[in-house]
Amino acid sequence: MSEIYTETGFEYDYVSIGRAKKARRTYGFDEISLVPNGNTLEIELCDTSWQIGGLNLSTPIIASAMDSVVSPDNAGVISENHALAVLNLQGIYTRYENYNEILDQIAASSREEYVSLMRKIYQEPIKDELIYAAVKKIKASGAVAAVALAPFNANRYAPILEEAGVDIIFVQVTVVGLEHHSLESKANANPETILDIKKFCSERSVPVILGNCTDYNVALKLMDTGISGLLIGIGPGAACTSRGVLGIGVPMATSIADCKAAQIEYFKQTGKYIPVIADGGMAVGGDICKAIACGADGVMIGSPFARTKEAPGRGFHWGMATPSPVLPRGTRIQVGTECTTKELLHGPAIYDDGSQNLVGALKTSMATLGAHTIKEMQEVEVIVAPGILTEGKVYQRAQKIGMAR
Amino acid sequence: MSEIYTETGFEYDYVSIGRAKKARRTYGFDEISLVPNGNTLEIELCDTSWQIGGLNLSTPIIASAMDSVVSPDNAGVISENHALAVLNLQGIYTRYENYNEILDQIAASSREEYVSLMRKIYQEPIKDELIYAAVKKIKASGAVAAVALAPFNANRYAPILEEAGVDIIFVQVTVVGLEHHSLESKANANPETILDIKKFCSERSVPVILGNCTDYNVALKLMDTGISGLLIGIGPGAACTSRGVLGIGVPMATSIADCKAAQIEYFKQTGKYIPVIADGGMAVGGDICKAIACGADGVMIGSPFARTKEAPGRGFHWGMATPSPVLPRGTRIQVGTECTTKELLHGPAIYDDGSQNLVGALKTSMATLGAHTIKEMQEVEVIVAPGILTEGKVYQRAQKIGMAR
Amino acid sequence: MSEIYTETGFEYDYVSIGRAKKARRTYGFDEISLVPNGNTLEIELCDTSWQIGGLNLSTPIIASAMDSVVSPDNAGVISENHALAVLNLQGIYTRYENYNEILDQIAASSREEYVSLMRKIYQEPIKDELIYAAVKKIKASGAVAAVALAPFNANRYAPILEEAGVDIIFVQVTVVGLEHHSLESKANANPETILDIKKFCSERSVPVILGNCTDYNVALKLMDTGISGLLIGIGPGAACTSRGVLGIGVPMATSIADCKAAQIEYFKQTGKYIPVIADGGMAVGGDICKAIACGADGVMIGSPFARTKEAPGRGFHWGMATPSPVLPRGTRIQVGTECTTKELLHGPAIYDDGSQNLVGALKTSMATLGAHTIKEMQEVEVIVAPGILTEGKVYQRAQKIGMAR
Amino acid sequence: MSEIYTETGFEYDYVSIGRAKKARRTYGFDEISLVPNGNTLEIELCDTSWQIGGLNLSTPIIASAMDSVVSPDNAGVISENHALAVLNLQGIYTRYENYNEILDQIAASSREEYVSLMRKIYQEPIKDELIYAAVKKIKASGAVAAVALAPFNANRYAPILEEAGVDIIFVQVTVVGLEHHSLESKANANPETILDIKKFCSERSVPVILGNCTDYNVALKLMDTGISGLLIGIGPGAACTSRGVLGIGVPMATSIADCKAAQIEYFKQTGKYIPVIADGGMAVGGDICKAIACGADGVMIGSPFARTKEAPGRGFHWGMATPSPVLPRGTRIQVGTECTTKELLHGPAIYDDGSQNLVGALKTSMATLGAHTIKEMQEVEVIVAPGILTEGKVYQRAQKIGMAR
Repeated sequence: MSEIYTETGFEYDYVSIGRAKKARRTYGFDEISLVPNGNTLEIELCDTSWQIGGLNLSTPIIASAMDSVVSPDNAGVISENHALAVLNLQGIYTRYENYNEILDQIAASSREEYVSLMRKIYQEPIKDELIYAAVKKIKASGAVAAVALAPFNANRYAPILEEAGVDIIFVQVTVVGLEHHSLESKANANPETILDIKKFCSERSVPVILGNCTDYNVALKLMDTGISGLLIGIGPGAACTSRGVLGIGVPMATSIADCKAAQIEYFKQTGKYIPVIADGGMAVGGDICKAIACGADGVMIGSPFARTKEAPGRGFHWGMATPSPVLPRGTRIQVGTECTTKELLHGPAIYDDGSQNLVGALKTSMATLGAHTIKEMQEVEVIVAPGILTEGKVYQRAQKIGMAR
Repeated sequence: MSEIYTETGFEYDYVSIGRAKKARRTYGFDEISLVPNGNTLEIELCDTSWQIGGLNLSTPIIASAMDSVVSPDNAGVISENHALAVLNLQGIYTRYENYNEILDQIAASSREEYVSLMRKIYQEPIKDELIYAAVKKIKASGAVAAVALAPFNANRYAPILEEAGVDIIFVQVTVVGLEHHSLESKANANPETILDIKKFCSERSVPVILGNCTDYNVALKLMDTGISGLLIGIGPGAACTSRGVLGIGVPMATSIADCKAAQIEYFKQTGKYIPVIADGGMAVGGDICKAIACGADGVMIGSPFARTKEAPGRGFHWGMATPSPVLPRGTRIQVGTECTTKELLHGPAIYDDGSQNLVGALKTSMATLGAHTIKEMQEVEVIVAPGILTEGKVYQRAQKIGMAR
Repeated sequence: MSEIYTETGFEYDYVSIGRAKKARRTYGFDEISLVPNGNTLEIELCDTSWQIGGLNLSTPIIASAMDSVVSPDNAGVISENHALAVLNLQGIYTRYENYNEILDQIAASSREEYVSLMRKIYQEPIKDELIYAAVKKIKASGAVAAVALAPFNANRYAPILEEAGVDIIFVQVTVVGLEHHSLESKANANPETILDIKKFCSERSVPVILGNCTDYNVALKLMDTGISGLLIGIGPGAACTSRGVLGIGVPMATSIADCKAAQIEYFKQTGKYIPVIADGGMAVGGDICKAIACGADGVMIGSPFARTKEAPGRGFHWGMATPSPVLPRGTRIQVGTECTTKELLHGPAIYDDGSQNLVGALKTSMATLGAHTIKEMQEVEVIVAPGILTEGKVYQRAQKIGMAR
Repeated sequence: MSEIYTETGFEYDYVSIGRAKKARRTYGFDEISLVPNGNTLEIELCDTSWQIGGLNLSTPIIASAMDSVVSPDNAGVISENHALAVLNLQGIYTRYENYNEILDQIAASSREEYVSLMRKIYQEPIKDELIYAAVKKIKASGAVAAVALAPFNANRYAPILEEAGVDIIFVQVTVVGLEHHSLESKANANPETILDIKKFCSERSVPVILGNCTDYNVALKLMDTGISGLLIGIGPGAACTSRGVLGIGVPMATSIADCKAAQIEYFKQTGKYIPVIADGGMAVGGDICKAIACGADGVMIGSPFARTKEAPGRGFHWGMATPSPVLPRGTRIQVGTECTTKELLHGPAIYDDGSQNLVGALKTSMATLGAHTIKEMQEVEVIVAPGILTEGKVYQRAQKIGMAR
């Protein structure tokens, strides 16, 4: 069974779940692969630079706004290595001046203590002066000052951020909805906590990135609010358990390719190019290459940075900007501290599994696929090549670790 | 290969198994996911209430009629937490006055002893006075008195139940068939043990829920017997091994969506809305959300309740109302006692895997998907997004428990 | 991509492997499931009897002609329990008078010694008098005397078998081909070792069952040779590694449904009904039910019988009638001795995984599906419901053995 | 969704990843299986010989040009056993006279030391005299002297090779592109390091094999450069991690069937038959059979040879001709030393998993499928029969190793 939408791009593939429900077949990174087309390049010819909100960035890699990934202390080294670090403004850095002690406590807590400890830690209120100080500290390190906050406190903190010299603001929530417009008309709406994204963007002196979103139609409407970029992805990350808890999640390859179509359509209508950033679900260099091949302009990754020696997580990685007091979803993962930020991004890689030298991997992939630029990389051929665990693969894997036979 | 049925709803997807057999492609919860549509709600705006058989229930969660899940002792706490507890009338509670000693024996038995112990325990006959006492005890706890019995003894025990003040009767068998009508015409049929469901319903002073069923046509006919609700699902539960033993089983997403279509059709024909209840195969909050998104009005779950501190199973969960003396199918699972009934349903959750705070998970999912009510939740977009164990996911999973690399 | 064959039955589903190769999508038991249709029966109404070669058998279960499954000693108990035992005539029973000592050696050998031990054991020639004695012994036990031999020595041993009073002869080879006709025309063909199946059948006083085969066209032609039954299946068994070694293997559901179509077509043309027997790949009761639902009249199983206390394998099971001296394919599996032959076939089952009480499982499945007879069971609805190992199932499985969380 | 390409061969199957990206469904060896067609042969009638570059080879098996697979010392024994050994000219054999000491160091290094050790080892320059000596040594052993080098140093070393008496030259790089023509026109192009494959072939006195490639159009153009064979495959090998690191990889069944179509088309246009060689991803005999059934004329395998007692790897196998200094992709696998080269190719097999007696397996498969020659083997029926790890298979597998129940 197949229903055709031809307004933009390709048809969708529909199946019948049952008589009362049809569903579209979607795809994740594990199901796709990239195909060389007979043109290859020398790696020196590959240019990974892109622009977002007027900033020129030499790699498309963004470190997630998570407490275990970016702190005011490692934003500098991330920036020196040509990635963009985004600080989570609802986390411990804006609640505690002595945030390093808090990080020590989290790292030292047992699995059983963790959830209640986090609940306690996040009861401490956010403080304006710590927001100000965090931005100043990042600026002082020479890095681009990028921060993320939730829609409900964006209006309140934006002036402080601008005063401190912020360069770019991410407004990020699990699922950004179009209802942010409609809710404001409610009588009891508090104008300070409900965000009119159009108004918010128009009042800012710095670019605003909005997310997260997975849908073509939603993306198309959000692009018309004055934002400078859109974050794509719901629930695919290593530290995110939305699909189990809420039943919600859209595989990344499909999400990106849909929102890319919205970008193309919006550009056709307005001449404005709004970059789309794949957020979450990318663990290795190959995933980053696939995200861009599906249409992403940039990628936002958490767990790879959490594994660096400079990461604030002390070998741990945990999800969600602010843990829910009653429904914890992001889990804590022990990721270890495997390499420096420099090695993560530019190598040399110690391991051969794609977890290190991410920029080198992207450039090598581009060279192999004949893509000079990120834009050309977005046009390479994608195939469906399920990476399912077959008997053969289990055997090969067992061989690798010396267990087969 | 595809054959089209357009009487109701969508086409079916057929494939050729071989020249002499075609088969429809069906879907389970693990293969689907839910998609936000750009409208989000504050969680306080989400209403999970529904009606069945004249009862107003504030959550769609029903505790299964299994000995390890509901006893006369924990029905009260389940009810206080806004779920409906259904007592199994063919189990130990109506065979033994000292059922707690029996539960101790079951918990203490080894894996080898278990099957024969169960065979022995269930040889004790059911006693009318224990049925009466069980209903009275549940009523006294302030709970809705809901009980389940098999078709063959429904006529016999119904008057006792009504006398004791039962509120709702579930008539439940692995597969309820339309032949319950035709069998009665047999000469040697014992009117007391063979159930004419239409007659049975018409003679009752309380609503009757019937099950289980997975088929559109069967559902449509059963809805015309006077029942107040229909249970959907064959063999998907954690404690059920029907597919291995009998080769029988229909994935839940398809079963629900098919029976939902029957509900819609029956409502169109008669104006009567017969709620459909997904029964079995839901282990986490996300599964409950998916069941409702496929069309379920309510969900019946066993193993999550078996894990509560108030559960009669003492950390164990076992299947089947009455174990077969020769062909055991339900297995016994050690599930532990992880949380209180209150924490199971309303949190706070200790773990982040969706196994706790089920009502909170449902409301959060509804809020994220923009569904104000259960009816709106039934209309959200479903996608096919296989949750197969890929190499990437195995890696992520290994990372979570600190084993990767 | 889809190509249509409408001569008989349903279309095939074709996909493109690449520009130079198309392939049909085929299905195994793990991918299908059976669906109740709203008619259920009391188990006493289910009749599992069938006829083959003039024999009336009360269950469709046949014990494989493998040394670890059937010996002259346990054929009697298998027969008493209403299954058909087939003795392998190329195995140790016709090479050694003291075959029990040989069985002891096999059971005592280490994994490293096994392959060379088997090579040595099978160098001993087959002896006419041992063939004669084996058949006599089986007859004396009151069992139907069924034996299996390979095409190349069928002509040689058939007269001895008939003299000894054999009841039915299986001529079995991995893949039976139509070329058995054409080869005979070769000048150097040895008439005693090359089998003309038509001639062979016409000369026999007892029915001949031929196999194995998976293809519609081959089945159609083989049915016209005078055989009384056809064995279906290549390489699906637990002790068979053909797919890994040779790349060859056809999933059972598709094989059966294709050969069933040949049976239907041949019956239409000639009025003769040639039973088809599914051989291999069935580990539990559910698999047997699925085989019949795909069209099988009988099922031939090895490993379940190898697990019985009366089995000759002493807790081991090994494949292939005669191991190849240079290319071993059948492996040896330690299966244990879990139950008696009676428990295997008629229960009571000790475990709930479908591995015991196979006849009880078949009857319960037939009752649940409303099938009075094997013929009605062949008409039940089959669905595609992949039993792939999803994350959810891994979790449920872990729960069962008490490992989850 | 499906788009049709009818120029050559069958249609492609396309799906929609999302609105902005469509993708073709591709297939690997684990997803396919081979089907007997009713004609079987005696194994003695099966001829596995083929021709490439004027050489007559009696088996289609080629040992990969990897340091752990082929050395100047074991090329002889590989040749004696009728396989073709290809020496890697960029590896340690042309950098070190005392290469055996280097091999000892690699085998003795820990997992942590391995990557940096390899980096150091490969900094030693390649020496002309060692190239010369290696070819001479292979010739002296009586073997066909086949060597592999990268495009960038092919022009430089080819004259030395011809002087030493090389028989066949493989020019091999991860992805061979058509741009080797266009790059030469660049002003700063160094004629000695940039390979014009057409010119290179025309200047050679020996046949040239080129690779690797996966695409129909690329294959068609490369076949017109004067090469004598084409290597097919990107990233499928056991020691290759391209898909994880770069996101790149095309499943072998599809790659072969596509390039086979190019071969057919090129032959139709020119009358020249350019053999295609499947390279990588084949672990067992069944994989080799499938590769040929998809259209391969020969197969190049690494890890099976690395497990032989004569292999230079000392029980280890590692990928890539020359490890990248910054982005290691090929991993090191401990494969053990299980059998002799003779046993690997011609048996007798010790194990029954298809890892030994590869020529015997191929011949047995051909006999079972009725294929007299490699060309007939290329025409056998292929089916899609997913070898996914289902619950049933996990159970069977557990049984094999005595773990089930």
